[in-house]
Amino acid sequence: MVGFGIFGCGRIGRVHASNIAAHPRAKLVACYDTVDTASASMAAELGPRQARSVEDLLQDPEVHAVFVTSITATHIDLISRAVRAGKPVFCEKPVDLDIARVDACWAEIGATNPLVMLGFNRRFDPSFRTLRDRVSAGEIGGVEQVVITSRDPSPPPAQYVAASGGLFRDMTIHDFDMARYLAGEIVEVQAMGANLIDPAIGAAGDIDAAMLIMRAASGALVHINNSRRCAYGYDQRIEVFGAAGMLQAHNRHLTTIEAWGSERTHAMDPVQDFFIARYAEAYRAELDHFIDCIETGAAPLAGFADGREALRLADAALESAATGRSVRLA
Amino acid sequence: MVGFGIFGCGRIGRVHASNIAAHPRAKLVACYDTVDTASASMAAELGPRQARSVEDLLQDPEVHAVFVTSITATHIDLISRAVRAGKPVFCEKPVDLDIARVDACWAEIGATNPLVMLGFNRRFDPSFRTLRDRVSAGEIGGVEQVVITSRDPSPPPAQYVAASGGLFRDMTIHDFDMARYLAGEIVEVQAMGANLIDPAIGAAGDIDAAMLIMRAASGALVHINNSRRCAYGYDQRIEVFGAAGMLQAHNRHLTTIEAWGSERTHAMDPVQDFFIARYAEAYRAELDHFIDCIETGAAPLAGFADGREALRLADAALESAATGRSVRLA
Amino acid sequence: MVGFGIFGCGRIGRVHASNIAAHPRAKLVACYDTVDTASASMAAELGPRQARSVEDLLQDPEVHAVFVTSITATHIDLISRAVRAGKPVFCEKPVDLDIARVDACWAEIGATNPLVMLGFNRRFDPSFRTLRDRVSAGEIGGVEQVVITSRDPSPPPAQYVAASGGLFRDMTIHDFDMARYLAGEIVEVQAMGANLIDPAIGAAGDIDAAMLIMRAASGALVHINNSRRCAYGYDQRIEVFGAAGMLQAHNRHLTTIEAWGSERTHAMDPVQDFFIARYAEAYRAELDHFIDCIETGAAPLAGFADGREALRLADAALESAATGRSVRLA
Amino acid sequence: MVGFGIFGCGRIGRVHASNIAAHPRAKLVACYDTVDTASASMAAELGPRQARSVEDLLQDPEVHAVFVTSITATHIDLISRAVRAGKPVFCEKPVDLDIARVDACWAEIGATNPLVMLGFNRRFDPSFRTLRDRVSAGEIGGVEQVVITSRDPSPPPAQYVAASGGLFRDMTIHDFDMARYLAGEIVEVQAMGANLIDPAIGAAGDIDAAMLIMRAASGALVHINNSRRCAYGYDQRIEVFGAAGMLQAHNRHLTTIEAWGSERTHAMDPVQDFFIARYAEAYRAELDHFIDCIETGAAPLAGFADGREALRLADAALESAATGRSVRLA
Repeated sequence: MVGFGIFGCGRIGRVHASNIAAHPRAKLVACYDTVDTASASMAAELGPRQARSVEDLLQDPEVHAVFVTSITATHIDLISRAVRAGKPVFCEKPVDLDIARVDACWAEIGATNPLVMLGFNRRFDPSFRTLRDRVSAGEIGGVEQVVITSRDPSPPPAQYVAASGGLFRDMTIHDFDMARYLAGEIVEVQAMGANLIDPAIGAAGDIDAAMLIMRAASGALVHINNSRRCAYGYDQRIEVFGAAGMLQAHNRHLTTIEAWGSERTHAMDPVQDFFIARYAEAYRAELDHFIDCIETGAAPLAGFADGREALRLADAALESAATGRSVRLA
Repeated sequence: MVGFGIFGCGRIGRVHASNIAAHPRAKLVACYDTVDTASASMAAELGPRQARSVEDLLQDPEVHAVFVTSITATHIDLISRAVRAGKPVFCEKPVDLDIARVDACWAEIGATNPLVMLGFNRRFDPSFRTLRDRVSAGEIGGVEQVVITSRDPSPPPAQYVAASGGLFRDMTIHDFDMARYLAGEIVEVQAMGANLIDPAIGAAGDIDAAMLIMRAASGALVHINNSRRCAYGYDQRIEVFGAAGMLQAHNRHLTTIEAWGSERTHAMDPVQDFFIARYAEAYRAELDHFIDCIETGAAPLAGFADGREALRLADAALESAATGRSVRLA
Repeated sequence: MVGFGIFGCGRIGRVHASNIAAHPRAKLVACYDTVDTASASMAAELGPRQARSVEDLLQDPEVHAVFVTSITATHIDLISRAVRAGKPVFCEKPVDLDIARVDACWAEIGATNPLVMLGFNRRFDPSFRTLRDRVSAGEIGGVEQVVITSRDPSPPPAQYVAASGGLFRDMTIHDFDMARYLAGEIVEVQAMGANLIDPAIGAAGDIDAAMLIMRAASGALVHINNSRRCAYGYDQRIEVFGAAGMLQAHNRHLTTIEAWGSERTHAMDPVQDFFIARYAEAYRAELDHFIDCIETGAAPLAGFADGREALRLADAALESAATGRSVRLA
Repeated sequence: MVGFGIFGCGRIGRVHASNIAAHPRAKLVACYDTVDTASASMAAELGPRQARSVEDLLQDPEVHAVFVTSITATHIDLISRAVRAGKPVFCEKPVDLDIARVDACWAEIGATNPLVMLGFNRRFDPSFRTLRDRVSAGEIGGVEQVVITSRDPSPPPAQYVAASGGLFRDMTIHDFDMARYLAGEIVEVQAMGANLIDPAIGAAGDIDAAMLIMRAASGALVHINNSRRCAYGYDQRIEVFGAAGMLQAHNRHLTTIEAWGSERTHAMDPVQDFFIARYAEAYRAELDHFIDCIETGAAPLAGFADGREALRLADAALESAATGRSVRLA
């Protein structure tokens, strides 16, 4: 039984907290949030004690591991302090928006190779994980092309955008990770961004639609398309094309119902609306995997280095979109 | 090059006449219709001479074979006369509405085993034909269940119904033939009819919806469902379930387009509206096959006996629906 | 918080027990099984106390309601005793195999209109429930045809068959209930059975494949097809055809992956293997609904009378299959 | 009735010749090929006279219009001579591999705005044409993203590649045209090529896989992916994503059959193998449209300028792939 503390009691924090509370090998021991009502509410609903401070939580002997689900700006500090306190850490993406800070963090804590797991939820989605397993098993021969479609249902408020690090670091970061997961290391990035949806996003200096093409060390080509708005829900599809065939992972629907009428046939529901619903199974699998890593010492499927690499790709995409040049990564 | 004469210049007659005119091994020589303007119109459009009478057409030495696409009541007479004139015959379904007349006809003409091909178009549909070939090749093991869905887009006028012989002889006749095509000879029939759509059809003594279950000599069970109205077009599907798997043939669409929007996803067009469009390829394949049979002497994929058997099943269905009893066929 | 006792600690009992243990408004208080090791094992895994007898469980003041998941022969007795002890009852299908015993039971306990919920899990499946809701909302106009496909992955052992009451009472019972759920009361039944799969099932006097057609009081026609074996998994599909369109509920797959290769395209996984996996969500929704009924006094979506009606239809099907006659229900 | 002459009696020439021969408003008058046996064979099969020279064909008063289906290097010359002879021209893509020659050609012949139709067959495919019509009708709101998947079944011989102008001018040319057809004029191109399939293609200085991203004047982003080999057939898909929804045009299959078995479900046939089969309807529609343009004086759906623009995009892609820089088009 692993005792967990959680930093950050917002939306995604509550997802993890509920999963911990329901998990047979986990116990939710303590929670902390700078907004006192947030941690109080979690304590009331799910039973952890409300820690008085970061240190109070980290010093709790019943807390064996921590979740960092607070705002991005706090991740580096909390990871470092938790590692120094000897606690395995699960941190939501991104590690940070600044690669220099990320590198400095690892320089400080990396020597002991601590367990830091990154919240790249898609790696734990049953369809994407099976996709990767089947690709790895050679079902479609050598991977030649990967096409990742990733569109959010609706754009975030402009003030969120301002602090987000921009679309590539905030949203595409997941797709960069999936690109690496399926095609291996990326060596070249070309990106094109556009502000097609909300002028306020453009005014905040960001984009709300993007297309990228990338080359992997293996030679495989990768395409990502992103949109901050999608009329039919949260569009999350991946196609892997290989020498001997193709595997596609499609969107998920709440029901299996098809409607046939005089205007149209085979019509299904809109797709699941956003990540909390779409990746509910993935969040449970993440927790399961984190507990396995804690108990066995195994390396996590997504670790600190994966967080760093995705951020490097985001930075490369930003540079390419700004300069119109292909960016090569060593 | 086979020269053809055609009896009956209505809708289905024109389908066959156009195919003959476009076929590299066929020539449309003559046409006849009791409605003079119908044959005149076909002659003007497609070039055959307008025969003055049945005999005029049958005596034409350039007419090597004939199509009987006139009204059902004339089929038996025209088949008999054509066979006596030594011409291979393609006759639209049904042979006749009265099994006694059908048997009398064959008693008269059958001795020489003449080439009489029946217009069971579905046997020639690329999907259904491939379905049968794959079933025959053993892909799904022994056939255990067949489910035939067959729904017309809209009910015929009540006066058509009155002369049609009723839903089982007019519409289900095709499904009875497909049942035999896929499951072999049928030995038991149970039928349930209903008048759900047009009260005028009920007033004319007919039904406009039906469900049947049948047993084949092989032991396989067969279900047919029929409706005289279908909001989404002409519904023509077949499922064959066997010991080792299942094959389904689905409806066809004009385009491959799927629409995704805020109300629904994966939405396709309505299905092709009715038999002229849905079975266009089948009508061409029928002609091809008929020419092959004429040239090689091979037996047709659907012959006179198949027309008779389908009619027997229709009669059995009528009896079962009337009595509520299972009808066994010797 | 509702305290539950459970009779029967076999496979389906454990499904319900696990759901109770994980439910925020439920507590698993006690369990009983005539096989002592079965209840001991459930007690060890999920924490309820191991009752010493039926009465011991029923007298427990912390047990507010009971699940009857023991063998069919015990259902009537346990329902009666639980009702007399004032406990709401959730009973797995079927109530009993003998309609006379079912009627006698209700004659004894029905006066107070006790809460007895029947485990017709399919009513709680998200797709089937949404199907029914959309049909009820009038999306496809008046219901004219219902087609229910229900095939088990593999046949049960012959000794199970012997005690099962036969395919209609054991397996089709769910489909009869779905027929009523979607088309309303049934007034006429025709059935055809066959022994196509396992000769031992035939030797035990049962069938392993069946087709039925039924007429609802509304006039709608219903088809059910059953097989005790299905190569591609647990086949559970429903099609509802109405005056204005059609709704289909399809099978479910573990992943959304499609494979494309030189031999085939669009290939998906086999379907979920059997009811425990296929209806996992339904079992959770059943419990939720049962708790709602207990707390609010609402009538259950599937009650004792529904269990009785499904059994009557099974008996009618048996009679029809034996006599070849349509059976009319008053 | 329009009389046609045809230059080039190879594979694609024969497709057009057969369609002309079968078309009710067209007559195949003459054919010419520098390989005498090729034109002799077409003359024998389809009946046109075998012209003795280009001039002999162009001077034939019964030839009202010509098809140029000879090798690319001859297109410019034949277009120019046909236009000077006053004949409308249908020319297969590409106009030429050299934009300077293309511009010189139009400088010479363009003053009279002659009818020169380009063989961009995909514009005439029923699914793609309907896709464009529905996009134009506003069904999905403003177009924001277009994703074009275009993969050939198997790579051409290296000697073909050497004369082809390279993948972008030979294969992607169709996709560039579809990009313009669906998203309007393109103003920016980024391309990444790879040699993943056949080393001989690399040795010949060409690529056999590519990904591109482009920006349209409207702001829309476009992705193209290409492969010279595709295990499951000729992959031709288009997705158009707009502010209010998405339309996808999928691949086509010979049958509608789905196979279900213990290893997989929903499995369909491989897709149609290559362009002659996949675009058979498009070739017929092209001819129809060309005849309409000849008879009414209407501008063709794909004209000389469209051929030129697609070539410019190919040149831009080549430059981008070579330099790693985004290429902007004025």
